[in-house]
Amino acid sequence: MSLFERLRDDNLDAWKSYTQHAFVKGLATGDLPEKAFRTYLKQDYLFLIHFSRAYALAVYKSPGLSDMRQALEGLKAIMDMEMDLHVELCASWGVSREQLETTPEASQTMAYTRFVLETGLRGDLLDLQVALAPCIIGYGEIARDNASATPKGPAAATYRRWLDEYASEPYQDVAVDFIRWMDKTSQIYMTEARFSALSVIFNQASRLEADFWQMGLED
Amino acid sequence: MSLFERLRDDNLDAWKSYTQHAFVKGLATGDLPEKAFRTYLKQDYLFLIHFSRAYALAVYKSPGLSDMRQALEGLKAIMDMEMDLHVELCASWGVSREQLETTPEASQTMAYTRFVLETGLRGDLLDLQVALAPCIIGYGEIARDNASATPKGPAAATYRRWLDEYASEPYQDVAVDFIRWMDKTSQIYMTEARFSALSVIFNQASRLEADFWQMGLED
Amino acid sequence: MSLFERLRDDNLDAWKSYTQHAFVKGLATGDLPEKAFRTYLKQDYLFLIHFSRAYALAVYKSPGLSDMRQALEGLKAIMDMEMDLHVELCASWGVSREQLETTPEASQTMAYTRFVLETGLRGDLLDLQVALAPCIIGYGEIARDNASATPKGPAAATYRRWLDEYASEPYQDVAVDFIRWMDKTSQIYMTEARFSALSVIFNQASRLEADFWQMGLED
Amino acid sequence: MSLFERLRDDNLDAWKSYTQHAFVKGLATGDLPEKAFRTYLKQDYLFLIHFSRAYALAVYKSPGLSDMRQALEGLKAIMDMEMDLHVELCASWGVSREQLETTPEASQTMAYTRFVLETGLRGDLLDLQVALAPCIIGYGEIARDNASATPKGPAAATYRRWLDEYASEPYQDVAVDFIRWMDKTSQIYMTEARFSALSVIFNQASRLEADFWQMGLED
Repeated sequence: MSLFERLRDDNLDAWKSYTQHAFVKGLATGDLPEKAFRTYLKQDYLFLIHFSRAYALAVYKSPGLSDMRQALEGLKAIMDMEMDLHVELCASWGVSREQLETTPEASQTMAYTRFVLETGLRGDLLDLQVALAPCIIGYGEIARDNASATPKGPAAATYRRWLDEYASEPYQDVAVDFIRWMDKTSQIYMTEARFSALSVIFNQASRLEADFWQMGLED
Repeated sequence: MSLFERLRDDNLDAWKSYTQHAFVKGLATGDLPEKAFRTYLKQDYLFLIHFSRAYALAVYKSPGLSDMRQALEGLKAIMDMEMDLHVELCASWGVSREQLETTPEASQTMAYTRFVLETGLRGDLLDLQVALAPCIIGYGEIARDNASATPKGPAAATYRRWLDEYASEPYQDVAVDFIRWMDKTSQIYMTEARFSALSVIFNQASRLEADFWQMGLED
Repeated sequence: MSLFERLRDDNLDAWKSYTQHAFVKGLATGDLPEKAFRTYLKQDYLFLIHFSRAYALAVYKSPGLSDMRQALEGLKAIMDMEMDLHVELCASWGVSREQLETTPEASQTMAYTRFVLETGLRGDLLDLQVALAPCIIGYGEIARDNASATPKGPAAATYRRWLDEYASEPYQDVAVDFIRWMDKTSQIYMTEARFSALSVIFNQASRLEADFWQMGLED
Repeated sequence: MSLFERLRDDNLDAWKSYTQHAFVKGLATGDLPEKAFRTYLKQDYLFLIHFSRAYALAVYKSPGLSDMRQALEGLKAIMDMEMDLHVELCASWGVSREQLETTPEASQTMAYTRFVLETGLRGDLLDLQVALAPCIIGYGEIARDNASATPKGPAAATYRRWLDEYASEPYQDVAVDFIRWMDKTSQIYMTEARFSALSVIFNQASRLEADFWQMGLED
């Protein structure tokens, strides 16, 4: 059983409130208003800037070269690739890269991103990984859960494009690698006495992810 | 004109949304449900733990001994005094110190506290001070604005006790000292080119403070 | 067996090169040139500024309130007391507080202090404690080892004053408390897989302490 | 006049003690014992690991995306390229990558690397850049100063290889880009009141670089 599975099982309610959020369900059926998705995607661009910073922090905090290389791959994946999906989709709505970068940051964006970063600075690499886990692994699970979904309606193609991105083999590999990387770190830094504190971090991060979906719905 | 005044004037809407929030008005009239205040106070205890960490971070980030001493005074004021007000008020409701420390953290508590801490770690002492300013200076202003308020109703004494604490000369001195300390730092680290970024920090922190009041109301 | 004892036993050569350094022996006999001691003491004042920062960092990195309080006591002990010993001794030689604060920092001072701080930022509270341990516990051991020493010569009173300070019950208590605090942290964060990395930190810190004595001798 | 030029001119003695160190002169003539160069190169490999961490920290601390991209390029340049030169040269002496990674770290390696990292964590991106500058820009200058040198003796080819690497257009571009990047940052974060503190950082970093050459000679 991986550390991720233990953490998820210990926080099933929070995990499901995030991975099975109404936003996600609307995305799979196509009932999600496109306005909600656009709000989400613009905030997610800002989110990815801070997530790049979190991966850079993981490079900094790594106890050895192999961890540094693993974190660097994650950093490059976001800055050299994942952010381009957002730029591409937004461009199709006439929203430029410059507009994206100057979007005012929503409270929910600040909440999750700063929580992840600060958790990493306060603690060690394992704390940082556990704070990152709901995002990285959760997106993979959401896309897999909805692999056969056929969204209907005006934004169907966009929603399918988003789901395909995270259901793709490259992204699924990222998620699996992350689970393994966390297990590797936990072999050195994990104790049973520490599990409850890690579980709180995982719980908080999952709830902040759910808040992030909710932000899209409420805008 | 102090840097604080410039920042406040540049963000009057956000500032008023915080310092004149419905929670504050209800506290002054006594119309605030006591449940809302209790929710707030318990979260504010968790908030103060992280604020102590923020002052400790300010000691760490200080460019010289006099800044370190100033930050240490702030740290001692919270850990050796301010937290006792919360413990005292909560004890009067039968909520123990242990219960306080194990209260689950609300999203809004995480949002503002981690934003402050992470802003300080990312930037310099001035960034950290600007992120702290809405809390430290705002509480003084709120208490002063409502110095002559006479809350009515069942929780009147508690609300008056809270207002008196922050209207007291010792706390007002803390706020004035903080304004001066920020000005002292800005004489070395402030440039006009940097003002807009500092203003964004101040704006975000003020909005996150307003969210924190709102949390109390909505619980 | 405390974690400290395990670390010391795993690094006996480095530990003795520090706690039984020629500087220490000269201090106990009185053969240490007063010039060497003055160089040391002025650098040690700068050292304590950074050590205060390290304790502030420990407050920031603490996983809970009791750790925060423990670290805050250490911070106050240095800034409100230990630095005064240096100011007092230096004043007796006509070296003012201002001169102390503007002494150029020696490479060896930078080396140990920045190593401690950065180790703490990179890792967790336990890493930081292990990096601090040689200084805090070692000074107590050195003073105890030389409790009955009677330095001779022109600087005898100064050397005895220094030894008495660290042999005093208050300082010995600080050292014992630190050993216990580290054990308390290790109950949550220590794994056997992690021991070798902690031992490297302890070894490096002990060697950097020995370099610090050597700096005094060579000036 | 770039910020780098101001800093260098304010610290010419420290700068020359580093860029015109006996180690450098011996490398250009070929009189440097190969043992000294091997000691240096093995420690420099450990140095680059921490320098990668410093660039990762620069990504984390960057105030915006363009700074993040600039820092990421630096990080990739070290981890994906510069470290390979060391591995290649060491392999030619029968020193494997594994041996390189487990070389005990010299005090001088710890001193400069931790100073750079901690300076960055304590302050802002500009502080970090100024601490990095002597290394990045200095190596470019050293290689340019000795562009026409023809080392003699048994290690001539190795020394020429090293000089060519840093005299190469790609590395010279790195140095020029770094000077520009620092100027860009200083346009936002630099004040005259701050110059003396930045100059102290530059001075300390230059002296720690000189210590690093000295370490090679003395081993």
